[in-house]
Amino acid sequence: MNLESLNTPAALIDVVRMHRNIERMQRRMNALGVKFRPHVKTTKCEQVVKAQMDAGAQGITVSTLKEAEQFLARGIRDIVYAVGMAPTKLPQALALRRQGCDLKIVADSVVCAEAIVAFGREHNERFDVWIEIDVDGHRSGIAPEDDTLLAVAATLSNGGMHLGGVLAHAGSSYDYDTHEDLVRIAEQERAGCVRAAERIRAAGLQCDVVSIGSTPTALAAEHLEGVTEVRAGVYVMFDLVMHNVGVNDTSEIALSVLTTVIGHQREKGWAIVDAGWMAMSRDRGTHRQKRDFGYGLVCLENGEVRGDYLMSGANQEHGIVSRSGTPDHEIEQRFPIGTRLRILPNHACATGAQHPAYHAVGPDGRVETWPRFYGW
Amino acid sequence: MNLESLNTPAALIDVVRMHRNIERMQRRMNALGVKFRPHVKTTKCEQVVKAQMDAGAQGITVSTLKEAEQFLARGIRDIVYAVGMAPTKLPQALALRRQGCDLKIVADSVVCAEAIVAFGREHNERFDVWIEIDVDGHRSGIAPEDDTLLAVAATLSNGGMHLGGVLAHAGSSYDYDTHEDLVRIAEQERAGCVRAAERIRAAGLQCDVVSIGSTPTALAAEHLEGVTEVRAGVYVMFDLVMHNVGVNDTSEIALSVLTTVIGHQREKGWAIVDAGWMAMSRDRGTHRQKRDFGYGLVCLENGEVRGDYLMSGANQEHGIVSRSGTPDHEIEQRFPIGTRLRILPNHACATGAQHPAYHAVGPDGRVETWPRFYGW
Repeated sequence: MNLESLNTPAALIDVVRMHRNIERMQRRMNALGVKFRPHVKTTKCEQVVKAQMDAGAQGITVSTLKEAEQFLARGIRDIVYAVGMAPTKLPQALALRRQGCDLKIVADSVVCAEAIVAFGREHNERFDVWIEIDVDGHRSGIAPEDDTLLAVAATLSNGGMHLGGVLAHAGSSYDYDTHEDLVRIAEQERAGCVRAAERIRAAGLQCDVVSIGSTPTALAAEHLEGVTEVRAGVYVMFDLVMHNVGVNDTSEIALSVLTTVIGHQREKGWAIVDAGWMAMSRDRGTHRQKRDFGYGLVCLENGEVRGDYLMSGANQEHGIVSRSGTPDHEIEQRFPIGTRLRILPNHACATGAQHPAYHAVGPDGRVETWPRFYGW
Repeated sequence: MNLESLNTPAALIDVVRMHRNIERMQRRMNALGVKFRPHVKTTKCEQVVKAQMDAGAQGITVSTLKEAEQFLARGIRDIVYAVGMAPTKLPQALALRRQGCDLKIVADSVVCAEAIVAFGREHNERFDVWIEIDVDGHRSGIAPEDDTLLAVAATLSNGGMHLGGVLAHAGSSYDYDTHEDLVRIAEQERAGCVRAAERIRAAGLQCDVVSIGSTPTALAAEHLEGVTEVRAGVYVMFDLVMHNVGVNDTSEIALSVLTTVIGHQREKGWAIVDAGWMAMSRDRGTHRQKRDFGYGLVCLENGEVRGDYLMSGANQEHGIVSRSGTPDHEIEQRFPIGTRLRILPNHACATGAQHPAYHAVGPDGRVETWPRFYGW
């Protein structure tokens, strides 16, 4: 199979770029002296995760228990489910552990910790629980100085669970676009999570793991003293949001959507393509950033960026490609019907999720089908 | 199976509401004296489409050839593929017709018409081709007064294809929110498409079908003189975008996402739930409308709307539920951990697409699993 034989729209992975992205992150983590635990929610794809593990990753992070089930079935046992545990999901977590999964679950409240303790005792299971730390007010977690931290730690520990460590994610790093800001937020993530671990230890409890991470902070951190592992997801593909944040060039984006020109509106300077939001996702993450890329940045079929052309609009299965600024009234000649283009996505996690499979394009131009799963 | 036994997040269909929505549209189409051809891109679900057909629909509209393949396999032969034909997809269209599918394809340029003629002649296939008409500058199609219309018609007809009719979609109807505006855009859609058919007929060519439609215009049109059939999709579920347009009440929205509260940030008045954008989609279609519903409107598990609570933010598997206006510092007591909520979506087509199956909740509370497919 090669690019020409693919139906459109299709999600393409540039395999060379993907390996470069994986190596870049792993080298950095090795240099900083921490374990690296990729977040597989970005791709949910066996072949991609295998490449990450082969490069030196130790364990994985998941956003759903389905991801844990799927990757356990593929032989990965060391798994962190990095979303606060819903009490109703404890039977599913128990089943995973009974199947040999070294599953770590997450709590950020006494109520949740108590539910874990009660269920664990009832089923004679010593769950490995990490406490989620809020280092930037972004989402969930307990602030490092909040006394709830020690109450949760004590609840788990006294309840006979294994208090494995603390975990933080500086999701607000996506809001910055200078190296200085990223260095600062990375240090805030590190210091906050380490501080939480120290407070737990000072209370006489064990807290071995200090797990932090996001793609921007992982790539910006100057040192990771006190941290034991880093998690990141989107770095494996990169995307236009990350480009605006400043951590990758467009030439490093490994994911694109192959599409075919199906029509034009000459007066408006539009080419209509057969990839709409169903193929790109509705993610408009660059909307509030320094450059708004619409639904994506246009490249020729060979991957060459046509930086002045964007997917400026999208319906379910129609995309509108147009030039930034002045309309291109010669767009019919520039991109005739049948022309194939590649669109770089705003957000690789969201775009990938729209596709049942990736089409992995190797350096020799051969294409392999790499399935991905979805759902819960 | 019942609601309590479902894992979260889960896409729920209120079956009673769905049937009411189907009947409302079909009654209207019967009263207006036109055939109704539902757009199955909204649900891609056998059980939903069967309900539409049982209520009187004649044929279906699809947005991908995969939808045509899937529904042909379920016994539906009369299918319009309402996206401009990419020449590279002609072999797939031919295969469908050779399997007994009465597939109609769409063209809006001489280049596309010529490609269809060349391929049809080569394979001895008389494709049934409809010409797409642009009635509102929304997307693709040929303006009714544009001479390209007659050139495309002549190309198809002289080339031995079956010129079946004309087709228009007033997508701009989504931009309005008063009945008067919807009546006006519905009449514009009708008149433009009928005018195009008349011009083709005046040129001595056959043009039997005049196909128009969108959910808002179908529900607003005062008469449909000259129209033979109407297409609409999202009406089967309705959603918050359509609510803002003014065609449905929130109590008519048949699709919701069931989710569980997993944590809180008391100071901010946030409840964190286990449905994020992966379950809701990234669609923010209400953002530019008269009321911005964030990622969705919160209901209790029983479906009762809590109109002052929205999903105000979303990450991949985390949603933030908060009160509009002043923060609710008692949200921990109001929605404790483990509470189940239902979120009404901005856009039913986009939210449904995130889920491998719907969970159809019947009037007796019993739940059936209705699979849906995705991809191309």
